[in-house]
Amino acid sequence: MSQTPSMAPPDPTAALQQAVETERAFVVQFFDRLAEQSRAPAGGITRDTYGPGENWGHRVFHDAAVSAGFNVDTDAACNTYARWPTKDPAARTILMGSHLDSVPSGGNFDGAAGALAGLVAMRVLRDLGMTPRCSLAAMGVRAEESVWFEVSYIGSRLALGTLPETALDGARRIDTGRSLATHIAECGGDLNALRAGHRSLDPATLAGFVEVHIEQAPSLVESNKAVGICTGIPGNFRYPNARIIGQHGHVGTPRRFRHDAMMAGAAFAAEMDAYWAEREAEGTPLAMTFGRFHTDGDHHGLTTVPGLFHFSLDVRAYDESVLTQIGAEMTRIIARLENRYKVTFEMGARAAAPVGTMAPDITTALTKSAERHGVTHMPLGSPASHDAAAFAAAGVPTAMIFVRNENGSHNPAEAMEIDDFLSACTVLVDWLAHTWME
Amino acid sequence: MSQTPSMAPPDPTAALQQAVETERAFVVQFFDRLAEQSRAPAGGITRDTYGPGENWGHRVFHDAAVSAGFNVDTDAACNTYARWPTKDPAARTILMGSHLDSVPSGGNFDGAAGALAGLVAMRVLRDLGMTPRCSLAAMGVRAEESVWFEVSYIGSRLALGTLPETALDGARRIDTGRSLATHIAECGGDLNALRAGHRSLDPATLAGFVEVHIEQAPSLVESNKAVGICTGIPGNFRYPNARIIGQHGHVGTPRRFRHDAMMAGAAFAAEMDAYWAEREAEGTPLAMTFGRFHTDGDHHGLTTVPGLFHFSLDVRAYDESVLTQIGAEMTRIIARLENRYKVTFEMGARAAAPVGTMAPDITTALTKSAERHGVTHMPLGSPASHDAAAFAAAGVPTAMIFVRNENGSHNPAEAMEIDDFLSACTVLVDWLAHTWME
Repeated sequence: MSQTPSMAPPDPTAALQQAVETERAFVVQFFDRLAEQSRAPAGGITRDTYGPGENWGHRVFHDAAVSAGFNVDTDAACNTYARWPTKDPAARTILMGSHLDSVPSGGNFDGAAGALAGLVAMRVLRDLGMTPRCSLAAMGVRAEESVWFEVSYIGSRLALGTLPETALDGARRIDTGRSLATHIAECGGDLNALRAGHRSLDPATLAGFVEVHIEQAPSLVESNKAVGICTGIPGNFRYPNARIIGQHGHVGTPRRFRHDAMMAGAAFAAEMDAYWAEREAEGTPLAMTFGRFHTDGDHHGLTTVPGLFHFSLDVRAYDESVLTQIGAEMTRIIARLENRYKVTFEMGARAAAPVGTMAPDITTALTKSAERHGVTHMPLGSPASHDAAAFAAAGVPTAMIFVRNENGSHNPAEAMEIDDFLSACTVLVDWLAHTWME
Repeated sequence: MSQTPSMAPPDPTAALQQAVETERAFVVQFFDRLAEQSRAPAGGITRDTYGPGENWGHRVFHDAAVSAGFNVDTDAACNTYARWPTKDPAARTILMGSHLDSVPSGGNFDGAAGALAGLVAMRVLRDLGMTPRCSLAAMGVRAEESVWFEVSYIGSRLALGTLPETALDGARRIDTGRSLATHIAECGGDLNALRAGHRSLDPATLAGFVEVHIEQAPSLVESNKAVGICTGIPGNFRYPNARIIGQHGHVGTPRRFRHDAMMAGAAFAAEMDAYWAEREAEGTPLAMTFGRFHTDGDHHGLTTVPGLFHFSLDVRAYDESVLTQIGAEMTRIIARLENRYKVTFEMGARAAAPVGTMAPDITTALTKSAERHGVTHMPLGSPASHDAAAFAAAGVPTAMIFVRNENGSHNPAEAMEIDDFLSACTVLVDWLAHTWME
C-alpha cells in the first residue's frame, strides 16, 4: 500500500511521532557541529557569553534555521530568531527557545537543546502540512549562564526590556574584566538601541514561551522518566564575590593568636550545609552552592595561615519565605563566626531572582500531550534558574519541558540521549498541533 | 675620666651592652639594604628560595661580612659563611645563623635576623678585644621556607649531608615547576659535589649551632618579654598537595545527587578544627594549617557545584604520640566524609619532620646570660620549624633565641623592634664571652 505525501496519514499520533523521528539526523548533525568549535582545553564545552564560543553557537543555530528555510534575524542584543510567521498581523507569537552559551568546561546540550527543539518543532509541523494560527519562532537566547557576568538572564531580559540599565556598563565578564556593553558591541549588538530602552519582544504579543532544557539533576534518571513537566523555577539570592578578612600568619601561630580566614570560611560552609540538611529533612527543598571557595592566590601557601578567603554563594528555593529564613540564619551564623575566628565577613554585592511561576493551562496541556504519545513523564520543580523565569516575570504564559540527562549539567560528562530529546520534541509538537495549528 | 680602648672597662657587663648598642647603625643598615631589592608587588617581602630574592639576601650578607673584615665563603649548596677561625686546627666551630629566604609577601626579619645576629656577635666580641677558644662562624642558610619546594630545611640539610638525594631532582619549585637541582645550578651551586654526597658541615666539628629568630607568634608580646629561650621545636606531618574528587554539577542539583568536593573540604577542615580545639582545651599544644584551600581555578564558578577541591595541610605538635593520634583521627574523619559527601580524598605525598630537641646546657647558659643583663625572657616552645631542627637531628648541640615580634611572621606586617634584636644579640654575645672566649 502506498500513500501520496499530500494525503493525511490514517493515524495522526503515529504520523507525528514518525515525523519527529525523521529529525534525528538533523539533530545529531546540529549538536556535532555545535561541539566542533566550542571544545574546552580543560575538557567539555565552553561557549563564553558574548564571546567567540557563544557566537559560534549562534552561527550554528543561524545556519540550521536558514538551511531549514525559515526567516532568520537578530535583535539589538544579538539574540537570534528563526521565524514562521502567520499571515494574520494581529496574531500573537509562540516563542520556543533557550540559551546557546555554556559554563566553562560544561556540556554541549545545556541550553542549546531548547533552541534546537523550537527549530525541530517548526520543521515537523511544516512537514506534516499544518498551518499555524499564530506566529511561531525559535529563539537562540544570549547570555543565560550567569557565571560569566554574574547577572541572570541577560539575553532574554534585554529582549524583554527588563534588564536594569546599569548592568550594561556595571557588569564585567569575570575572565576578561570588560563590560557587558563592550562585549555586546564586539558581537555586533546595537548599544544605542539598548541604551534607549528598545525591546525586541513585547510581552503582550507573546502567546507563550516554552523552553525545552536538559534537567540539571538526575531526578528523571532516578525515576526512569524521559521528560519532566516543570512545576516552578526557584528564586535565589547570590553573593558572587564575598570575602573573609583575617590576618595572614605563620604556620606555627598558636590557636589563640590566629585570625584564620580560611577556617572561618570552612566553618561557615559547614554550618550552612548543616542548616540545609535540617530543612531538607523537614521536607523543604532548597540548595546552596559555594561555587568558588578559595584562599587567596597571591598569598596562600603550605606554611601561611590564610588571612584572606574568597567565596561565592548561591541559595535557591521555591518559596520566597524560605529564602528570607535562610538569609536570617546566614546572618546569625556569620555573627557567631566573626566572633569565634576574629575575622570580618564582607559579603559584597547581593543579587536576587524571584520565584518563577509556570502557566497552568500550558503545563496541563503538555502533560496531556506526553500521555497521548506514551512519553514517560513526571511533574518536576526546576532545580535551576532558566530564561523561562524572565519570561514568566514579564507576564508571558510560560512552560518548560525537561529532558532526562545522565550526569548532571555544568560539567563535561553531561549526557542526554537523542531519544529523550526527540520525546520532548514530540510533546512540544503535539501541544502546538492540538492548540495552535489547523 | 678617660679610658684608652686597649684597657678593659671596669664593668664587663656594661661594656658588653655598650658594644652591642654600638651595632645599632650596622643592623639598621643591613635590614634596610636587605629590603631594598626584595619588596613584593602584593606587599611585604619576597626572597624566593634559590631565586633572585634569596640571592639578594646572600649578596647583602656577603657584603656585610666582607665590610666587617671576616673571611667569606660559600658551600656547594650556596650557603654563605662568614668566618672567624681560631689558630688551633683541632678546635671545633660554634655556628650561628638562620635562613635568608622568605615566604611570598612575608616580612624582612624572618630568618635574616639570625644570620645577622651571628655577624653582630662576632663583630662585638672582636671589638671587645676577646679571643675565641673555638672557631666562630655566621651562616646565611639557603632554602628554609618550605612553601617554595615543599621540602624542609633544604640548605641546612644539604650542608649537613642529610637531605634525601631524591629531593634534588624530585622537588620542584611550586611557582616555576623547575627542579631543585636546576635552581641550585642557576644560583651557582656545585651539583656534582652535592650528588656525590659531599657535606660542607661535619657535625663532629661543630661545638654548637645557635639560631636567633623572630618569634612567629605573639607569645612574647603577650607576656611582655624581649626574648624567648627555646625549649623545643615541634615535629610535623604535611600533605602539600591533597585533593578531594567529587563531581562537578549544576548549581541547582538537589542535595541527594551531589558529589560536592568543596562541602567535603569545608566539613573536613571544620571537624579537624573542632578536634584541635578539644585537644587544646585538654592542654595539648598543637597546630593545624590549611595554607592552600581552594576550588579548582579551571572549573570553579558561581553556578557550578565544585567537583574538585585542593588543599594543603600542616599539622604540628611537640610530642610524636600526639602527631600519631591526630593522624588516626584524620583517617576516621575522612572515612566518614567520603561516605557522607560521596567523594574521594586523595591525600598525595606525605612529608614529616621529627620533634627537635634543644641542648640543655646551652639553653641553661643562655638563660643565665639573659639574667645577667636584665634582658626580659621566658622559656618558649617554638611554634614553628627551624633550621635548628636539622642541626639537632644531625647530633649538633643546638639552641635557639626567639625575638619578640608584634604581628606574627609570614606576613607583611611582621614587626621586630631593633632594641629586642640587640637584646638577643646581648644574650648570644654574653654566652659566647663566658663559654668560649678568653
